[in-house]
Amino acid sequence: MRLSILIAALLVALPGTVTAQGHSAAVAAVIEDLVAANRILAAEGILPGYGHVSARHPEDPDRYFLSRAIAPELVTADDILELDLDSVIIAPSGSSSYLERFIHGEIYKARPDVQAVVHNHSPTVISFGIGTTPLRPVFHQAAFFLDGIPIWDYRDFGTAEGALVVTPERGRGLAVALSDRPVVLMRNHGVTVVASSLPMVVGRSITLEDNAEMQSAALARGDRITYLEFAEESMGSDFLRAWDLWKRRLTPTGR
Amino acid sequence: MRLSILIAALLVALPGTVTAQGHSAAVAAVIEDLVAANRILAAEGILPGYGHVSARHPEDPDRYFLSRAIAPELVTADDILELDLDSVIIAPSGSSSYLERFIHGEIYKARPDVQAVVHNHSPTVISFGIGTTPLRPVFHQAAFFLDGIPIWDYRDFGTAEGALVVTPERGRGLAVALSDRPVVLMRNHGVTVVASSLPMVVGRSITLEDNAEMQSAALARGDRITYLEFAEESMGSDFLRAWDLWKRRLTPTGR
Amino acid sequence: MRLSILIAALLVALPGTVTAQGHSAAVAAVIEDLVAANRILAAEGILPGYGHVSARHPEDPDRYFLSRAIAPELVTADDILELDLDSVIIAPSGSSSYLERFIHGEIYKARPDVQAVVHNHSPTVISFGIGTTPLRPVFHQAAFFLDGIPIWDYRDFGTAEGALVVTPERGRGLAVALSDRPVVLMRNHGVTVVASSLPMVVGRSITLEDNAEMQSAALARGDRITYLEFAEESMGSDFLRAWDLWKRRLTPTGR
Amino acid sequence: MRLSILIAALLVALPGTVTAQGHSAAVAAVIEDLVAANRILAAEGILPGYGHVSARHPEDPDRYFLSRAIAPELVTADDILELDLDSVIIAPSGSSSYLERFIHGEIYKARPDVQAVVHNHSPTVISFGIGTTPLRPVFHQAAFFLDGIPIWDYRDFGTAEGALVVTPERGRGLAVALSDRPVVLMRNHGVTVVASSLPMVVGRSITLEDNAEMQSAALARGDRITYLEFAEESMGSDFLRAWDLWKRRLTPTGR
Repeated sequence: MRLSILIAALLVALPGTVTAQGHSAAVAAVIEDLVAANRILAAEGILPGYGHVSARHPEDPDRYFLSRAIAPELVTADDILELDLDSVIIAPSGSSSYLERFIHGEIYKARPDVQAVVHNHSPTVISFGIGTTPLRPVFHQAAFFLDGIPIWDYRDFGTAEGALVVTPERGRGLAVALSDRPVVLMRNHGVTVVASSLPMVVGRSITLEDNAEMQSAALARGDRITYLEFAEESMGSDFLRAWDLWKRRLTPTGR
Repeated sequence: MRLSILIAALLVALPGTVTAQGHSAAVAAVIEDLVAANRILAAEGILPGYGHVSARHPEDPDRYFLSRAIAPELVTADDILELDLDSVIIAPSGSSSYLERFIHGEIYKARPDVQAVVHNHSPTVISFGIGTTPLRPVFHQAAFFLDGIPIWDYRDFGTAEGALVVTPERGRGLAVALSDRPVVLMRNHGVTVVASSLPMVVGRSITLEDNAEMQSAALARGDRITYLEFAEESMGSDFLRAWDLWKRRLTPTGR
Repeated sequence: MRLSILIAALLVALPGTVTAQGHSAAVAAVIEDLVAANRILAAEGILPGYGHVSARHPEDPDRYFLSRAIAPELVTADDILELDLDSVIIAPSGSSSYLERFIHGEIYKARPDVQAVVHNHSPTVISFGIGTTPLRPVFHQAAFFLDGIPIWDYRDFGTAEGALVVTPERGRGLAVALSDRPVVLMRNHGVTVVASSLPMVVGRSITLEDNAEMQSAALARGDRITYLEFAEESMGSDFLRAWDLWKRRLTPTGR
Repeated sequence: MRLSILIAALLVALPGTVTAQGHSAAVAAVIEDLVAANRILAAEGILPGYGHVSARHPEDPDRYFLSRAIAPELVTADDILELDLDSVIIAPSGSSSYLERFIHGEIYKARPDVQAVVHNHSPTVISFGIGTTPLRPVFHQAAFFLDGIPIWDYRDFGTAEGALVVTPERGRGLAVALSDRPVVLMRNHGVTVVASSLPMVVGRSITLEDNAEMQSAALARGDRITYLEFAEESMGSDFLRAWDLWKRRLTPTGR
């Protein structure tokens, strides 16, 4: 596994080559970043045991990568599966993944601009999916959701199957609720965040929790809030500076 | 101790054999999981110094396993005692355990379906045992207590002996209050959680604290809450995925 | 320093002997526990950089031990000074200690039952010294302050010298406010906790912060609180079980 | 890098000498402290990925030191740049720094007494920049902002450029809002803190977050607050005791 990462890293510099697993350098790089995204979101408390993150295939927009059904903190490159947009597992054959994989497949289908998806239960964000206060941007890094956050309600699909997105129909319903936004809250369940890259979807997930905490702190004091007004999306919203930091933290040596 | 775990692990694969301590493979496996449960709940902040977790004997429903009276973070296999359902210590002879062991014995007596019990003082959960807001499920993983959480009040037994469950009578009173539910709050004291397995009782204890935090955050903002409506208990409520993670975290190498 | 601890530990078993520093075994044991108390309270977030803990001399009730003026997390046996009850430093000569050492000396003078004193700024406790809600026991381990917590107000001594206890007069005023209680809040400043042993004063300091958090969580939700009613002080209130744990945590090997 | 620190540390003792990088001992000492300030503020959660800290050149008041645009946790001596007060990078040539460097340059221009500046997004402080409750001192260590904290509002400069201080004009506006105070909140964005030394600006940044948490906790309970009344700035407000601790924590050996 250490060796396969090393090889993958080397191959990134050599476009057109393939790894021992038969991956192109571009695919190997996405898988390496997807493993990092899993472990970063676990370390930051966004994916503490449940939830998942995926990335669209860089060379085939009708495919995406997602881990088999283990805790994100434990994910390695060997756990990453390839699925089609109906969320059928293509490779390795015989694998199984998360029951809620339809979140990812149906959003990739509906949103060609999306390259990465996180579904999580981050604690303060989730508290906005059970209450009456809209989650709204209170600081500059949260400018990405200035247009508001819709809430998808499982009860529209009946309560017999619980609150989870375990069918293609529910996945499609979630994608419709998401519409062209970056975030959709899920009633009594969690949140789904999308972006055009893995660093950005990770940064947005963490920023969303930060924003939820700030907004909650002010409201718990009894304050009236001055929400962020229209602003060009803040510079640095690609979260690349933080991404460098988060990756470095994964190993003491910075790998 | 390291060696005894290794032996225990090997013996699990050989039903009918016994360990050096005279334990069957099934018992050795339960003791190993009970040690893990103690250390996981300590690491997750649920048993930071006080509180305890037990498991019913897998081969003799009239016995259960509980540590001697030390902090859960320090528990090893050598600290695990065997008790009968009157909470008398059977082995090793001459040992002593927690003063509140009657919580466990009386619940195992009253609830044949229960295989594991946690008594803890997890901070946000405990705040619901001193206040007026009922602790209710706000997200899918909390579906296990959709039927509500009763509160046991020590004052019904007089205040001269304090708030603790230090007599068989108080233990029986707690079991009556628990009834057929998975959780019972204890006024000015803590909470007791039961389940059909150690991974499940650990997962439920952690989920209960998560739910208490989310519910408190929404109410502190002044929100009206949409509580979880009837739903089949969410898939994954055996908490096995998280259990794998929590066990791996106990040692850097994943043992 | 490692060696001196080892020697001290050995000498504890030999009453009447003296250490290389000329300490009796009883004194060496108190100093070892005082170093542990400093480091435990730092690790638990109660003394994150400021604040201090002292112990009365076990053989001379007119003396007490306190560190020189460094952060508690850094205190070693070599930093422990001996003071008289006027808070004059007796040994080593030429040393200097905390400006607020009068807190300790004046309380030891007024309260012969007190063997250990902590002054800290623990965050949620301190918030009760600036507000209008009385800090009251909400769970069994907090039974030790069932008789209530007085507040000492620096403004009674004028604001020209700030809010701190930097004179013997202020120390005496604090001891009068404390009276026969275990805890005194200090307006816009912090708290002082006393007990008959170091493990107990450490346990009480940590429990006080836990209680403040639980009480605040319930009130922030808008709950009415059922406070702890009269109860014999809960069993285990010597905090020895937790003290064992906290000491073990100081070094990976448990020293 | 390890070696250059060692050399720098040795040279501090030899005024008039220069380091391998051509720095005087005084400059090398400031750079070492600036690296420590970056890493301390990251470790304490004040600069978790974004934000920055600078120091005025000790020998040329028209220059200041600031890192290139990386996360503060990763800053080493090699990342420190020298800028003039128009925030033009002087050395090393060809470097680039934070887009908001004008915060630092314009404040050094307007405030000859200021030797160090921190701009951060510390979570509870930032919640006061979005609400209606003034952030006011509630405990003695917060005496440094007894005169109040102004709020700079980006909307006075239009919302087209977002909420950030990315132009000299905005930097000057911020310096005007700061006036002769130690702190200025920035609407929907963060806070800027100034002081006469790096240890003091670090201590003030951390104390400000502590104060915001205490004040918020009391208000969330519904308390009326007794704010700190006039007091000579508390002794120890140079934060040197805590600075020693924070530096020691950066490396296990205390470097």
